[in-house]
Amino acid sequence: MTPIARIPVQMVSGEERREASDALAIEEPLEIRLNHVGPEGSEQRVLSITMRTPGHDDELAAGFLFTEGILRGAEDLREVRPHRPDAPAPGRTNVVQVSLHDHVTVDLQRLERNFYTTSSCGICGKASIEALRAQSPFPPALPGHPPYLSSSLLHRLPQRLRAAQDGFEATGGLHAAALFDASGERLLLREDVGRHNAVDKVLGRALLDGLLPLRAHVLLVSGRASFELVQKASMAGLPCLAAVGAPSSLAVELAQEAGMTLVGFLREGRFNVYSGDWRVV
Amino acid sequence: MTPIARIPVQMVSGEERREASDALAIEEPLEIRLNHVGPEGSEQRVLSITMRTPGHDDELAAGFLFTEGILRGAEDLREVRPHRPDAPAPGRTNVVQVSLHDHVTVDLQRLERNFYTTSSCGICGKASIEALRAQSPFPPALPGHPPYLSSSLLHRLPQRLRAAQDGFEATGGLHAAALFDASGERLLLREDVGRHNAVDKVLGRALLDGLLPLRAHVLLVSGRASFELVQKASMAGLPCLAAVGAPSSLAVELAQEAGMTLVGFLREGRFNVYSGDWRVV
Repeated sequence: MTPIARIPVQMVSGEERREASDALAIEEPLEIRLNHVGPEGSEQRVLSITMRTPGHDDELAAGFLFTEGILRGAEDLREVRPHRPDAPAPGRTNVVQVSLHDHVTVDLQRLERNFYTTSSCGICGKASIEALRAQSPFPPALPGHPPYLSSSLLHRLPQRLRAAQDGFEATGGLHAAALFDASGERLLLREDVGRHNAVDKVLGRALLDGLLPLRAHVLLVSGRASFELVQKASMAGLPCLAAVGAPSSLAVELAQEAGMTLVGFLREGRFNVYSGDWRVV
Repeated sequence: MTPIARIPVQMVSGEERREASDALAIEEPLEIRLNHVGPEGSEQRVLSITMRTPGHDDELAAGFLFTEGILRGAEDLREVRPHRPDAPAPGRTNVVQVSLHDHVTVDLQRLERNFYTTSSCGICGKASIEALRAQSPFPPALPGHPPYLSSSLLHRLPQRLRAAQDGFEATGGLHAAALFDASGERLLLREDVGRHNAVDKVLGRALLDGLLPLRAHVLLVSGRASFELVQKASMAGLPCLAAVGAPSSLAVELAQEAGMTLVGFLREGRFNVYSGDWRVV
């Protein structure tokens, strides 16, 4: 159950106005701290502050570190736990601490999120794609290999996503990401105010459960497919990303490079295939 | 006209499948570089890399620097220009250079985007709001002061937004932000794959045109209202932010703190008022 908040609002319909109660998606900052062994001994640093919906913070942290290329797999991870100081204070669960095993080398440049190639001649989407390709721990999905996905299976997924979006149902303000197996069974669903967070939570759970790479799965997102979401799916080895909304130009380019099947506008018995159409049978 | 890309796709409807051409929202990275005088003379640094829809990059850079609290106003700005090296290269317009006047002191900590208060007892939304309040160059909108907005005026805005969303019309993949005056006239509209970018472009244009603070205006966004969007609106002195979609809990809290009228679900002759309802008459 995704947490929600209730507040009094004024609801206006035409010229009518009345007091009512409305359900809101909860948004709070989460600070991710990383403990690891650096060249000068043990280090702790703040890795990221992201606005997220509280809950599944361990998954969010694990998924974020993995899709950013800092964690190569579950074997790098010693522990993910909420930072709870002894003194009670507001927001005390808005910090999560990630500890890595001693053997893990952390690329500090990557921590700065400068994974784009920059040079005096500028940057472009192709440079971003190049930089990403070097980063994924899994080889790209191969053309001509399973899973094959039937269009009737794909048509069924949005309803199965929607049926479990309890937070969206209540608030209208939450993105969702869901993982399906090749038979269309829903394995995992997470909701968040940030669509990248919803994906990180799903992939983080899969990482923690030892399911990576996700070679026979479909990830469905409730909104649009950006470069960043294709990147995250690609890091997890997914052969197919499907979106209820539109993809961007760079999302399509990256999916083509990665051999991933990218499906957009998957709703109401229709969809478009932007990349890897041989996988849809 | 928001730029779009056309690619061949397979369109599937039920069991039917055909080749077609589809329009995509363009997503490319933009690197924002800052030139300023620091304690050790002139410095240049990469401030941010954001995925955006190309076009209006000067506005995006100016708006981003302003809403992040680095620029206090147009008087701090010497120049914003695309970085075009002599040698032609792909992506050469994906870098924009911002130069500040010599008198401007840049808070390097703010550049790191660490505007959240962090301490051993953790972070919370209230700390984010506190940190923001110190940052805005304008006093908060005062209760009991104009503009007053009629519900009939608010009802008209979504159609006026939609009528100008040519990129969304073509692609289904672009967010929009539009600035209206108190009579409901649309002054500016920008589209982008990132909703924060669409808002930064509108506010950057307003900054470059010397329109800040926007004391008698309404900003309408095509999607949801997050903390970040209320923050940006608050920095520009806006008395009202309206969203076609849902607000988050922290967006409502910040709007209440800032004396801003926050309207959500503004569509089809209805809306909810989450904060500052006295302004809606």
